[in-house]
Amino acid sequence: MSISVTIGDQEYFPDIEKVRYEGPGSDNPLAFKYYDENRVVGGKKMKDLFRFSVAYWHTICGAGVDQFGSETHQYQWLRNPDPMQRARDKLDAAFEFTSKLGMAYYCFHDRDLAPEGEDIKDSEKNLRKMTQLALNKQNESGVRLLWGTANLFSHPRYMNGAATNPDIHVVAHAAAQVKAALETTVELGGENYVFWGGREGYSTLLNTEMKKEIDHLAMFLAKARDHGRKAGFKGTFLIEPKPMEPAKHQYDYDVNAVIAFLKSYGLEDDFKINIENNHATLAGHTFAHEIQTAADAGLLGSLDVNQGDPHCGWDTDEFLYNLYDAVEIMIVLLRNGGLGAGGMNFDAKVRRSSTDLEDIFIAHILSIDTLARGLLIATDILEKSDYLDLVKRRYGSFDTTAGRAFEAGKLKLEQLAEIAECSGEPLRTSGKQELFESIINRFL
Amino acid sequence: MSISVTIGDQEYFPDIEKVRYEGPGSDNPLAFKYYDENRVVGGKKMKDLFRFSVAYWHTICGAGVDQFGSETHQYQWLRNPDPMQRARDKLDAAFEFTSKLGMAYYCFHDRDLAPEGEDIKDSEKNLRKMTQLALNKQNESGVRLLWGTANLFSHPRYMNGAATNPDIHVVAHAAAQVKAALETTVELGGENYVFWGGREGYSTLLNTEMKKEIDHLAMFLAKARDHGRKAGFKGTFLIEPKPMEPAKHQYDYDVNAVIAFLKSYGLEDDFKINIENNHATLAGHTFAHEIQTAADAGLLGSLDVNQGDPHCGWDTDEFLYNLYDAVEIMIVLLRNGGLGAGGMNFDAKVRRSSTDLEDIFIAHILSIDTLARGLLIATDILEKSDYLDLVKRRYGSFDTTAGRAFEAGKLKLEQLAEIAECSGEPLRTSGKQELFESIINRFL
Amino acid sequence: MSISVTIGDQEYFPDIEKVRYEGPGSDNPLAFKYYDENRVVGGKKMKDLFRFSVAYWHTICGAGVDQFGSETHQYQWLRNPDPMQRARDKLDAAFEFTSKLGMAYYCFHDRDLAPEGEDIKDSEKNLRKMTQLALNKQNESGVRLLWGTANLFSHPRYMNGAATNPDIHVVAHAAAQVKAALETTVELGGENYVFWGGREGYSTLLNTEMKKEIDHLAMFLAKARDHGRKAGFKGTFLIEPKPMEPAKHQYDYDVNAVIAFLKSYGLEDDFKINIENNHATLAGHTFAHEIQTAADAGLLGSLDVNQGDPHCGWDTDEFLYNLYDAVEIMIVLLRNGGLGAGGMNFDAKVRRSSTDLEDIFIAHILSIDTLARGLLIATDILEKSDYLDLVKRRYGSFDTTAGRAFEAGKLKLEQLAEIAECSGEPLRTSGKQELFESIINRFL
Amino acid sequence: MSISVTIGDQEYFPDIEKVRYEGPGSDNPLAFKYYDENRVVGGKKMKDLFRFSVAYWHTICGAGVDQFGSETHQYQWLRNPDPMQRARDKLDAAFEFTSKLGMAYYCFHDRDLAPEGEDIKDSEKNLRKMTQLALNKQNESGVRLLWGTANLFSHPRYMNGAATNPDIHVVAHAAAQVKAALETTVELGGENYVFWGGREGYSTLLNTEMKKEIDHLAMFLAKARDHGRKAGFKGTFLIEPKPMEPAKHQYDYDVNAVIAFLKSYGLEDDFKINIENNHATLAGHTFAHEIQTAADAGLLGSLDVNQGDPHCGWDTDEFLYNLYDAVEIMIVLLRNGGLGAGGMNFDAKVRRSSTDLEDIFIAHILSIDTLARGLLIATDILEKSDYLDLVKRRYGSFDTTAGRAFEAGKLKLEQLAEIAECSGEPLRTSGKQELFESIINRFL
Repeated sequence: MSISVTIGDQEYFPDIEKVRYEGPGSDNPLAFKYYDENRVVGGKKMKDLFRFSVAYWHTICGAGVDQFGSETHQYQWLRNPDPMQRARDKLDAAFEFTSKLGMAYYCFHDRDLAPEGEDIKDSEKNLRKMTQLALNKQNESGVRLLWGTANLFSHPRYMNGAATNPDIHVVAHAAAQVKAALETTVELGGENYVFWGGREGYSTLLNTEMKKEIDHLAMFLAKARDHGRKAGFKGTFLIEPKPMEPAKHQYDYDVNAVIAFLKSYGLEDDFKINIENNHATLAGHTFAHEIQTAADAGLLGSLDVNQGDPHCGWDTDEFLYNLYDAVEIMIVLLRNGGLGAGGMNFDAKVRRSSTDLEDIFIAHILSIDTLARGLLIATDILEKSDYLDLVKRRYGSFDTTAGRAFEAGKLKLEQLAEIAECSGEPLRTSGKQELFESIINRFL
Repeated sequence: MSISVTIGDQEYFPDIEKVRYEGPGSDNPLAFKYYDENRVVGGKKMKDLFRFSVAYWHTICGAGVDQFGSETHQYQWLRNPDPMQRARDKLDAAFEFTSKLGMAYYCFHDRDLAPEGEDIKDSEKNLRKMTQLALNKQNESGVRLLWGTANLFSHPRYMNGAATNPDIHVVAHAAAQVKAALETTVELGGENYVFWGGREGYSTLLNTEMKKEIDHLAMFLAKARDHGRKAGFKGTFLIEPKPMEPAKHQYDYDVNAVIAFLKSYGLEDDFKINIENNHATLAGHTFAHEIQTAADAGLLGSLDVNQGDPHCGWDTDEFLYNLYDAVEIMIVLLRNGGLGAGGMNFDAKVRRSSTDLEDIFIAHILSIDTLARGLLIATDILEKSDYLDLVKRRYGSFDTTAGRAFEAGKLKLEQLAEIAECSGEPLRTSGKQELFESIINRFL
Repeated sequence: MSISVTIGDQEYFPDIEKVRYEGPGSDNPLAFKYYDENRVVGGKKMKDLFRFSVAYWHTICGAGVDQFGSETHQYQWLRNPDPMQRARDKLDAAFEFTSKLGMAYYCFHDRDLAPEGEDIKDSEKNLRKMTQLALNKQNESGVRLLWGTANLFSHPRYMNGAATNPDIHVVAHAAAQVKAALETTVELGGENYVFWGGREGYSTLLNTEMKKEIDHLAMFLAKARDHGRKAGFKGTFLIEPKPMEPAKHQYDYDVNAVIAFLKSYGLEDDFKINIENNHATLAGHTFAHEIQTAADAGLLGSLDVNQGDPHCGWDTDEFLYNLYDAVEIMIVLLRNGGLGAGGMNFDAKVRRSSTDLEDIFIAHILSIDTLARGLLIATDILEKSDYLDLVKRRYGSFDTTAGRAFEAGKLKLEQLAEIAECSGEPLRTSGKQELFESIINRFL
Repeated sequence: MSISVTIGDQEYFPDIEKVRYEGPGSDNPLAFKYYDENRVVGGKKMKDLFRFSVAYWHTICGAGVDQFGSETHQYQWLRNPDPMQRARDKLDAAFEFTSKLGMAYYCFHDRDLAPEGEDIKDSEKNLRKMTQLALNKQNESGVRLLWGTANLFSHPRYMNGAATNPDIHVVAHAAAQVKAALETTVELGGENYVFWGGREGYSTLLNTEMKKEIDHLAMFLAKARDHGRKAGFKGTFLIEPKPMEPAKHQYDYDVNAVIAFLKSYGLEDDFKINIENNHATLAGHTFAHEIQTAADAGLLGSLDVNQGDPHCGWDTDEFLYNLYDAVEIMIVLLRNGGLGAGGMNFDAKVRRSSTDLEDIFIAHILSIDTLARGLLIATDILEKSDYLDLVKRRYGSFDTTAGRAFEAGKLKLEQLAEIAECSGEPLRTSGKQELFESIINRFL
C-alpha cells in the first residue's frame, strides 16, 4: 500500500511536496538520491526491507530544548495553549510530515500523542481520544504504527524509577500507564511494543537494592506481557538498552545485559531487543556489534537509527549519515535475514540550531539515503567481491573432519591436545584486516 | 595455618623482614597499619575473610616493560640466562616475597611458573618439573594456590584468538595448554581455575564470525570442565571479564556478558566470575556494581583487586589505594556473604619507575591496608549507623500487603492500575543520596 | 565580619537553624564536623582561606529538571506565577539559605537574579530593580558577591553562540547583557566577573569559521573589560573552561586552551581562570592538574567546586565529597599561595531525587566538611610527613652546580652531552609512587 | 624527481612490483585506485601536495608486539642476530618498500636506524655509520627524509622523563642523543625535526614539580634549537602532541597545550606542530579540529596520518581508511594553504595479525587512496557545490558596516548594546548542519 499525503486543518509544510526519488545525480536536498522505495534489492522492495519510521517525540514534539537552553524551534503545531488542541495539531503535523516523506511507519510514547491529564483516568481519557483520531489518520494516509510505548521517565514521579521504583505506588502508576499504552498500541495495530527504562537504574548504588529492583522489573514486564496478550497484542515486546543517561547506571545497559536479564527471568519468548546506535556507542560497542549479538541470540527486534558523537559522552541523537555505519549494519542484517517485524525508526533530532522547517525533511532524507546507499553497497560487497569467500576461507579448518568433530562436541580436551601435538606449531595466518577495509572502501 | 618465611638458595629481599602489624599510628611503610590477620571481624579472622593472593606475573615476572619502553626493574631473579634456572629463581623469589608478606595464597599462569618449551611436550615437561618444586615450596611455607590459569594470549599463535581462533590447530594448541595447566592446578591443590580470554574477541567485525567463535568458546570451556572434573578438580571454574585490550572487543565484556554467555550455553553450574576492578571500570562500571551483579546472579567467584586511572583508557593495573572503592566493595561483600572459595588477588603492578626492591612490598601493604580499613569502615557503617535502616525504609512499601502481593506475582497489571487510581499521585520521596554519602565520609 | 541569618517575608527553612560546628564526633548531618570557620590553619582562618560561595542557579533556581524529565523540587520560592515576585522570593530564599549555612559569598547569573524581560531595556530594568534588593540583603546579612556573570546560553538567540555567533546582532545582544551584568556586579561589590562560554564553540566544524569566531570572542572580551574598568570594576575577569556540553566542542576547552587564547590575544593581564572539577575531568584532567597548570601560568583565579562521575560523559555537577580530590587540591593550593581574590563556589546540584528541603543543606555541609578535612589532612602531610622532603630530594640534582647552570640557561646542548658522557648511565631512581600514595592514605 | 626502486643485497618483497595507478575500477589491492602522483589538483601534483612518508618504526621495525603478546611478524630483515647487520637489512627493506610504494619521504627515530650501543659514544658511532648508508640509499632511490627524531622513551633511563627527568644526568643523556639525531637529520637533508615527548609528563602529580619540569623542557628545546641552527638545520622543529600513554598525563596534551607552551616560552618562531589523528582523538578532538587550531595559530607543521578506534582508549595507530576524516582534513588543508614544508607520515601499523608480507603494502595503499580520494572529494565540494557560499553567507553580517567596525575594534560595548536595542530580537538563523552533512555525502 502506498502512502497518501495527508493534510489536516492547516498545512504545516506548504512549501514542501511529497519527497521523490531523483537519483544520485540530483543536488536537490529535498529529494531521495538512493532510496527508491519500490526498487527490489535481494528480492525485496526497499520499503519492505527498511520499514522506516518517524519518531513522534523528536521530529514533531522536539522543540530544540537542551540541558542548557530553551526551545529554539518555533513550530506552528506546538503553539496552541490548549493541550488537547495542541495534541491534534501535532497529529496533523505528524501525518503530514510522515506522508510527505513517504514513510510507512511512525512510533510514539503515550505522552507524545496525548497530554498527561490531572490524574490517571484523565490521562487515559486524553489518550483514548487521540487514539481515535490517530486511527483515522492512519486509515487516511496508509501510515502504520511500528511500535508504541509509555513514557515512564519524564514525570517527576518516576525520578527514582518506574517499574524499579522503591515505592510500589509509583510502580502501580507505571502499570496504569503501560496498560493504557498497550491497549492503544493494540487498537492502532502497532506491530511491536517497546520498553525503554531510562529511569530503571540508579544514581548511586549506596541507596539501591539492585536485585530487588531488577526482580520487580521482571515481574512488571511479565505482567505487562500477560495483559498485552490478553488485550490481543500479537506483536513483539521490545526492550531498548541504554547504559546510562538519565540514570547513572541503567539496568538494560547493553544487548548482553538484556540477554542476561531475559534468560534469568524466562522472558525470552516474548521479548526481543530494540537497538539504538547512540546507545550502543555509549556502552562502548559499535551498532553492528550490538545487532550481531542480538541476532546471534535470536533476539533481534528492531532498530532505532541515529548516530552519536564519539567525543561527547551523552546521547546526541544525530541523524545517521555515516556510510560506514550504514554499510556495516546492512552487511550484518543481510547476512542474518533482516529485521523481520521490526523496522528502522529515526530516533534522531535535528540539531538545536537547525530551525528551518525544511531541516527536519533534509535530515530524514539524509539518513534514508545513507541507509539505502548502505544497502546497495553491502549487497555489492556480498555479491560482487570475494568478501564472503575470504571469511569462509578464514574458518575453513572447521569444515575438515576434525573441525566438524569439534563443533559437534565429539572431541575431548585430550583429543584436541593430541591433534595439537601431531600437527605442530600452527601457521600464522593473516587476519587481513586492511584488505577487508580496502574492500569496503572500494565499494563505497 | 600460619605462613613461614621461606627462603631459597639466595635471599632476594635480605633487608626486608616478615611484615608485621604495627597499628594505625605507625609511619613505617613496611608495616601493616590496619591489616591484623587474626583480628576477628564479623565472626571471621581478617585473613580468612580476604584470602589475599600474590599475582606471580606482575610481582615476580613483571619487569617494567610498557608499550613504549623496555624493562626498568632489575630483579636478581630475572637475570639467569637459562630459562629453567630462571624459573627456579623466580619460584624462590615468589615464595620469599609471599611468605614475608604473610599472604596465604598465590596465583599464576602456566608460563609464569615454567617457560614455554620447544613444543607442547617440552612445555608440559617444564611445567610438570616446576610444579613439583612449587609443591615443595607450598608445603614449606604454608602458602596455597588460589587459582591457576593458562596464558593463552602471549604467544603469537594466539594472535587471532585461542579457543575462538579461526584455525582449529590453534584451538587444539590452547586445549593442550589448558589440559596441562588444569592438571597442574589440581596437583597443587588450586581452589579455582581461571579463564581470561584476552584474545577471545576481535580486532574487526568485518572478518569475524562472532557466533561461530562464541560457540567454539563454549564448547572449549565445556570440554575443559569435563577434563578438569575427570582429573579431580573440585573447585570453581572462573571466567574473568574484560571489555577490550588487547582485543578491540572481547567477548567476556563485563559481568552481564558472561552471565548471558553462561546461561545461553548452560555452563552456570560449574563456572563463576572473577571480577577485576580495572576491567570493570574500562567497561563503564564500578567494581561494586560488577560484584553486586555477579552476586545477584549467584555467580560471584573471586576478585582481582587493583585500580585504574579514570582518564586512561587502558588497564593501568595500579595497586588499589582508594578507600571509597574499598568501603563500597566491602559493603557489598558483607551484605552478600563474602567471597566463599574465592579470594582477593592483587592483579596489580608497581609503576614502571618504582624500581626499588621495597616498592613491591610497599604497594602490597598499601592495598592490603586499604582493604582492611575498608572492612572496618564498612562494618561500622553497617553496624553503627542507620545506613541499613535508611535502605530498608526506602523499600518499605514492599513490606505492605500490596508490596508483598506484587513481589509474589499475585497482582495483575489491571490490579496495579487500580491501586494507582486509588492511591493518587505518589509522594516524591527523596533518595537522600547526599545523606548516604555523608554517612560514608563520617566513617572514613 | 560574621554572617547574620537573614529571613525575608517568609521563612523558607523554618526547621533549620544556623548550621554550627559540632566536631568530628557528631552524627548530625546538619552540623559541621570539620569546618570551624574561625579555626586558624597555616596562619589563616578557614573562612578566609576557602571563601566558600553558594551558587544561586543550582541551589536556589535548580528545580530538578534533567534532559529527560521535568521539575521534581517543589520549592516554595519557585511557585509564584509573577516572575518579579518569584525573583524576590528567590532572593529571600537565597539569603536565608546562605546565611543559615554561614557562608560569606554567593554567585549568580543575571537571569538567576532577575527574569528576562520583553526586550533588552525591560530585562535591564528587572535586573537593576533586583540589584537594589540584593544590595539590601547583602548589607543585612554580611554576605558578599564572589562573582557575577551573564547567562549567555539559555536563551534561544544564543543557540549558535553569543560572542562567537555568526550574526552580529546576537553578538550585540550579548554585549548589552554583559554590560548590564558587569554594572550590576560593580554595584554589588562583586570581586570577580566570570565568562563561561557554553555556546562559544561549535556543533559541527563544517559550518564554522573557527578563527573568525575566536577573533570575535577576543574582541568581545576586550571590549567588556574596557567597559568594566570604566565602570569601576577593580576585580579579576575570569574565564571558565569546559570542553563540551552543550557545544560539541567549546573553545575554552581546558586551562591550556584558555592560556593559549589569553596569550594569543594579549588578555592575560586582566583575565584569569575559574576552574571547575567536573569540567576538568570531562577534558581528561584531574582538578589538581588544572589548578596547578593555571597557578604555574600565574592565571589561577577561582574554583567551581563539584565532582563528576567518571563513567558519565556529561557534567553531573555532584557535590564534592571525595576526600582524595580535596586533599590533592589543598596540597596544590597550599603550595601555591592559595586562591587570592578567588573563592570556592559550590557549582553543584543535589541529585534530582533529593527532594527534601534539608537535602541542599546536607549537600553543602558535606562538601564544606570534605574540603575543610582536606585542608587539615594536606596541612598534616606538608608539615608532619616527609612528603616535601621526598619531592625535594627527587629533584635534588638540580641543586648541584650543573643543575643550576642548566636552569640558568648556561649549558649548551654540547655541554649537556659532555656531562652525559662523563657521568655514564644514570641510576634508575624509583619514583616511589606507591610510597607517596601511602603517605596520603596514612593521613586520611 | 621520481622514485627508483632500490633493492639491497636481498630482495625482501620479490613478489611485489612497483605499485602503479590503475584507477577506481581496479580490484587489485596492490594498485592505486585514486592516487595518481602526477595528477594535478588545484595547481599542484598530488605527490607534491601530500608529501607522503613511510614511518620506519612501524612498517620496518614493527614486529607485531603488543602489551599482551610477543612478535607475530616474521620479517626476514629482523632476523640477523648482529644488531648492526640487522640495521643494514632494515635499511635495505625500508628503501625497497618505500621505493616500490613510490613514496618520496621517510621518517625515523635514531634507534630505528641504528642500534643503541654500549654507551653514548658507541651509540653515536652506530648512528653515524648508518647515516652514511642511508645517504647512499637516498641518493640511489630519490627518497628523502621528511623528518628525523630521537627516541627518548624506550630506554629504561627515560622512565621518569627525558628533558623533564628529575635527574639532570638523564636530561644530559637526552641532550646527547638529540645532538646526534639532529646532526644526522641535517646530514640527511631532513626537512623537519620532531620532538614527541612520550615520557615528558607524569604518572602521578603527587611526586611531580610540574612547573620545574616544563621549565626544563623549554630550556632543553631552546638549547636543541640553538644547536640545530648552528649545525645548519634550516627546517622546522616540530612538537607532536599526545594527551597520555605511556605517561598518565603528557605535557604536550593537545595543540592548544603546545601553543600555550610555545607562547609562554617564546619558542613559536622555530617550532610548529606535528599533529596525529589518533593523538587528537585521545585528547577529545577531531583531527580536523586540531589541524584547524594549529593553522589558525600559524603553527601547522606536519601530519602523522592514522586512525584510532573510538572505543579503545589507547593509541591503536590503525591505517586511516575513513573517508570522512580524509575529506574533512582536506577541506581544512585546502582552505588553509596546505602543509608547506610538512608532509603526511603514515604513523600507523598493520594489525598484529596482519602477518602477510603484502599486508604492509595493502595498508599503505589503502591510506594513500583514502587521502587522494578525500582530496578529490574536498576539491569538488569547494568548487562544485555551494558549500563555501553557505559558509560565507552564514557570517555575512560581519561584512556589513557594523560587522566590519566590530572586527576592527571600533565598537565599544555600549555601542554594541545600542545596536542590539535598535535591531531588536535577532532572527533564529538555522545552522543547517544536516544540509552541510548532505553535501559531504553527496560528493562522497
